[in-house]
Amino acid sequence: MVQQSNVDVIIIGAGPAGLMAATWMAHCGIKARIIDKRNTKIFCGQADGLQCRSLEIFDSFGFADRVWKESNHMIEICMWNPDADGIIRRSDRIPDTIVGLCRFQQVVLHQGRIETIFLDNIKKYSRDTIKIERGVLPESLVIDESKVDDDEAYPVTVTLRMLTEEESAPPQVMSASKVPDGLFRSNLQGDFDEEARMIAASRARCGESEVVHAKYVIGCDGARSWTRRALGLELIGDATDFVWGVMDIIPITDFPDIRMRCAIHSADNGSLMIIPRENKIVRFYTQLKEVRPDASGRADRSKITPEFIFKAAQKILAPYKVDYAYCDWWTAYQIGQRVGNQFDVHNRVFLAGDAVHTHSPKAGLGMNVSVQDTFNLGWKVALVAKGICKRAILGTYQSERRRVAKDLIEFDHKFSRLFSGRPAKDMMDAEGINMDEFKDTFVKGNLFASGLSVDYGTSILVVKPGDAALQGDGTEKSARLALTAKKISEDEFAKKQALATGLPVGKRFNSFKVLLQADGRPWHLQERLKADGRFRVVLFAGNIRAPEQKARVDKFCAKLDAPDSFIRRITPKDKPIDSVVEVLTIHSAKRTETEVLRDFPEVLHPFDEHVGWDYDKIFVDDVSYHEGFGDAYKNYGVDKERGCVVAVRPDQYVSWLGELEDFEDLQDYFEGCLKMPAVSSAAKVTEKVSGLVESVASKVNGDIKTAVRPVSNVKDR
Amino acid sequence: MVQQSNVDVIIIGAGPAGLMAATWMAHCGIKARIIDKRNTKIFCGQADGLQCRSLEIFDSFGFADRVWKESNHMIEICMWNPDADGIIRRSDRIPDTIVGLCRFQQVVLHQGRIETIFLDNIKKYSRDTIKIERGVLPESLVIDESKVDDDEAYPVTVTLRMLTEEESAPPQVMSASKVPDGLFRSNLQGDFDEEARMIAASRARCGESEVVHAKYVIGCDGARSWTRRALGLELIGDATDFVWGVMDIIPITDFPDIRMRCAIHSADNGSLMIIPRENKIVRFYTQLKEVRPDASGRADRSKITPEFIFKAAQKILAPYKVDYAYCDWWTAYQIGQRVGNQFDVHNRVFLAGDAVHTHSPKAGLGMNVSVQDTFNLGWKVALVAKGICKRAILGTYQSERRRVAKDLIEFDHKFSRLFSGRPAKDMMDAEGINMDEFKDTFVKGNLFASGLSVDYGTSILVVKPGDAALQGDGTEKSARLALTAKKISEDEFAKKQALATGLPVGKRFNSFKVLLQADGRPWHLQERLKADGRFRVVLFAGNIRAPEQKARVDKFCAKLDAPDSFIRRITPKDKPIDSVVEVLTIHSAKRTETEVLRDFPEVLHPFDEHVGWDYDKIFVDDVSYHEGFGDAYKNYGVDKERGCVVAVRPDQYVSWLGELEDFEDLQDYFEGCLKMPAVSSAAKVTEKVSGLVESVASKVNGDIKTAVRPVSNVKDR
Repeated sequence: MVQQSNVDVIIIGAGPAGLMAATWMAHCGIKARIIDKRNTKIFCGQADGLQCRSLEIFDSFGFADRVWKESNHMIEICMWNPDADGIIRRSDRIPDTIVGLCRFQQVVLHQGRIETIFLDNIKKYSRDTIKIERGVLPESLVIDESKVDDDEAYPVTVTLRMLTEEESAPPQVMSASKVPDGLFRSNLQGDFDEEARMIAASRARCGESEVVHAKYVIGCDGARSWTRRALGLELIGDATDFVWGVMDIIPITDFPDIRMRCAIHSADNGSLMIIPRENKIVRFYTQLKEVRPDASGRADRSKITPEFIFKAAQKILAPYKVDYAYCDWWTAYQIGQRVGNQFDVHNRVFLAGDAVHTHSPKAGLGMNVSVQDTFNLGWKVALVAKGICKRAILGTYQSERRRVAKDLIEFDHKFSRLFSGRPAKDMMDAEGINMDEFKDTFVKGNLFASGLSVDYGTSILVVKPGDAALQGDGTEKSARLALTAKKISEDEFAKKQALATGLPVGKRFNSFKVLLQADGRPWHLQERLKADGRFRVVLFAGNIRAPEQKARVDKFCAKLDAPDSFIRRITPKDKPIDSVVEVLTIHSAKRTETEVLRDFPEVLHPFDEHVGWDYDKIFVDDVSYHEGFGDAYKNYGVDKERGCVVAVRPDQYVSWLGELEDFEDLQDYFEGCLKMPAVSSAAKVTEKVSGLVESVASKVNGDIKTAVRPVSNVKDR
Repeated sequence: MVQQSNVDVIIIGAGPAGLMAATWMAHCGIKARIIDKRNTKIFCGQADGLQCRSLEIFDSFGFADRVWKESNHMIEICMWNPDADGIIRRSDRIPDTIVGLCRFQQVVLHQGRIETIFLDNIKKYSRDTIKIERGVLPESLVIDESKVDDDEAYPVTVTLRMLTEEESAPPQVMSASKVPDGLFRSNLQGDFDEEARMIAASRARCGESEVVHAKYVIGCDGARSWTRRALGLELIGDATDFVWGVMDIIPITDFPDIRMRCAIHSADNGSLMIIPRENKIVRFYTQLKEVRPDASGRADRSKITPEFIFKAAQKILAPYKVDYAYCDWWTAYQIGQRVGNQFDVHNRVFLAGDAVHTHSPKAGLGMNVSVQDTFNLGWKVALVAKGICKRAILGTYQSERRRVAKDLIEFDHKFSRLFSGRPAKDMMDAEGINMDEFKDTFVKGNLFASGLSVDYGTSILVVKPGDAALQGDGTEKSARLALTAKKISEDEFAKKQALATGLPVGKRFNSFKVLLQADGRPWHLQERLKADGRFRVVLFAGNIRAPEQKARVDKFCAKLDAPDSFIRRITPKDKPIDSVVEVLTIHSAKRTETEVLRDFPEVLHPFDEHVGWDYDKIFVDDVSYHEGFGDAYKNYGVDKERGCVVAVRPDQYVSWLGELEDFEDLQDYFEGCLKMPAVSSAAKVTEKVSGLVESVASKVNGDIKTAVRPVSNVKDR
């Protein structure tokens, strides 16, 4: 008999996108498996740029610090263009990351290290229960359509086969060449995956098979995605005529900007992008003008060797000299721009990363957009699998991420043309590229490239006005989101958004420093928006020392603390009150004149019989001793006296904004996306809670020892 | 036959001081062993405060980031004193770490985590060759005095015995109590170590024995040091009448400053120090006024229990209520202040940490001074064992560290009296303690407590004027240092010190941000002063774009690059030029107008045939895009046009200061402390180098490919 088992989530492919999905499962405590047909992880080459938003995301899981420490930080971009004599000259310097945008800046670190850091994090948070199963090939995928709407069902059946050592070794490892040859994964190469699969299939059942029934499947298996083909879905788009070679070398050169990121247009020899990396390595993206696609649109790869690529680079860099003694990796590719027509089937099987979008690698966006796909998807799948969120939220994955993929392709199209084109000789040279236009596109592209301009449209998860289809990916699917979305008029929304002009609804929650009230320690607020699967309500409590404002806060908190509030109803009875939705408070009174227990309702610093009050949830916007002043209210555009309330998704995107009086509207938002228990079960909670309120009152007034130890009903919260 | 072996260094005791010594051996590639009689590391309790300097030191080994991330940061100290009615009130708030002093602030993390982080670092840098050997007891230590002056000899013979599981388990582990009882290591407890030793000795040779011959032995085996007794040395000093209890609990309380560091004097019930820690734990240091030493000077420990200590704390904190459900650890101690009379024997066996100084733990200094002892000693032993430094430098260990230990005892004496005393009721209450005096001592003590006020005296390693004995520990031994020290008059020194007023000779090299010239990335300069056993010359090159200044830099570099310079002579022929002394450059011209290859002599960015020029050694004092302006020249007090030259010890202490014209004086300094090869062997180097100079010239002018690859004599550098 073939082994059979059930699992909540299967992730196919253990590259960065798959690992990000697995990281969510680990942090949310989901039963998940992640398989990969390769028997080893990446050791060199491949993607390596990490934009600001990716670092913020890594930080939300707790591992940005390792990447930040090991990576090369890219600070400045130098533009080199031909002068009147056709000699390349430095024409401009611009900061690589827009100043003031983010607490991180763009860095580079090779994919192998990033994967290792992901694996350590997954191991730690899953307590070693989620392990990458390598050398495992999916053979079939069947969806039982009769069960796709049943929350308890496992409607997807995947058959897996364990490969032998030999079957799962990519050619890279088998190669005898000293310089690792990346061409086997280039789009100029034949389809190794398919070859391996055919070889494997021909060996009659030499490996073991297994049948797995899953609630959800996430396909992160790259540009030639098996999952995508199993679903019968396609990538739509074209290849361009531009062919580029990539080399990771330690250059020996008199070119002065070799440790800067450089965009070099030569007069006639093509373009070169220089990306300095860790351990003295520099990546050269070199345009191969002499390689042209044939009538079939496919470039001839026979003459592409490291020597060939490097000669092209030397020509572009002349009159500067360049050589190398060490090459870490090389490859070549033909720029193609394609996006998937559909990102999921029945909200049960999802595609992410290269499986649904391919483009040129030079802007350093590929890995970033891929990990951000599954950062968007992972918590949604996890919270639906846990029964906390409604299944309807899964529809937002395609509308949010296919929109980003389309924007990316559009950006890449423009950028590739400008970068691969020959510089105009003068104003009359219409075929040439205007270098001012190139710089302008580059500078504008920097915001897009940071990942911070992403703005999710209206849906069940994001309360803003407008057309769901237009704000999403334009499909029927994203239009349908309007049906479940909470409605708000343009006028009404404008009033709400004015409460926190620095926190646009749909964008990620920006980070400024605030101090923990209880100990005065500065924190970047984002450090407290951990990716642990919790929604958050951020209460800008304003000037809590002003009696009028204090009354507003008390009123808001009384509703929050009431037995029928969303937070009490959604929290499982055996769990602490902050398990599903965490409330964080930032006030604007003087720190030294404020006290946690005296000035704030208990729901903002919940009590636990074993560890007392929670001192980690109340912050103040005040000056620190050692790290300056974050000026958070000003930077978030929030009124220092009156404050406001913000709901934040588990992935840090701002989803709802309102006044302290808008509690019912906030409640509506959570009713919309969370699977609330019926009111009848909430009634039971009421009894317990009213008992509790008395015991809490006795804690401060009475003898704490007596009050605290025997109160067994505190647990019921 | 008993097993015999040779080893460069044996470290006895694997607490923080011993682990620091082992860390140096790992980073310097020394063959070393570290033994501990316990069979396990610390899991809870014990020392936990880490001052600024300790964090700088951890950073120099590359692990401050882990401690910084896991620890609790102490930001503010609140002073609580009795008011006119005898009720405690908050009387003051002061920053816990003096503002602007250091890029780190004081933090707390329990010793077990710190030891784990040390172990990871030792494993990584020694490539797993230095492992803690647990359950190993030293049985005898013999010094062969006829060999102590022979650099190649192994004059110290130590006999080791492997304990059984049972012998090496401390009572803590054997105890059935749920609350770990720290009293077994308290000075109020009987001598467990001695008991265990006796038990072990009585079991006729049940474990294996081993004889090890060592060049050096470092005894870090605590207050009851076996090594110290084996050497016949003593701790000198007294116990006080003050008895204190320590508890690590998660308090449940309405006291508002429970997450602040607090110094609380009650009117009549004694004093309490509150130290908030990681994971919601808070340490209470509670004065036990009811426990008094008997006629023998020893306190009665029979009634000291957690309940007894906590009752005392509750009385002090009244009218605030406090209770706890969780206690992590507790202990009690009688304040004793003692310092060793001698820190080494024949510069072959050294004592460090608690083995040579004991004092009260409340100022959080114990572990810091201990790890700083071996941070001072480790590189000296390592570089002497490697044949790089002269044996004479070992004499500076006692003069430098015994001086610090004496200062510490003096500080602790004053602080303990003021903190353990009863607050004065009014001006006439002569027996009471004046609270203003207490605050004043506390504030002043903060600089001492940071570890940054340490100022090493004149010696072979530090070029400054004055009396070596007075600046050292006052002994004959420190007076003898004057014999080897380089002489400088007060007047002459004043002129030199004026070149860099922010870098006092004898103190640690302060840290400000500078940018790497090659890529514009900001670095705290200290991040580039890694603890890898290298001396450094920091060249403040001034305005390198001014022709006059450029000529001065060129002249200095020509001497540095000459075949008879200290740096060429001390570097082993098969090693890169920066192996023993690394030269770092900071210039003050505009970054964007400066280029590494064009503007700086090659000795400042040495060439390597495999990886090209070194872009990691030249920095600029300029504005960064994202991290402000370090203003390093101003902060170091160095003239922006003319610069200066600074020599820095491997432990980051400033050891010599001079003009760019003072090359010969700088050379003298290194001749004094380094074991330079005779000039004859340097002559050989000359030939190689003159050949090299030509090949270097050809690199830039000629075809790099041809010039670089075949130049085999580049290796000879």
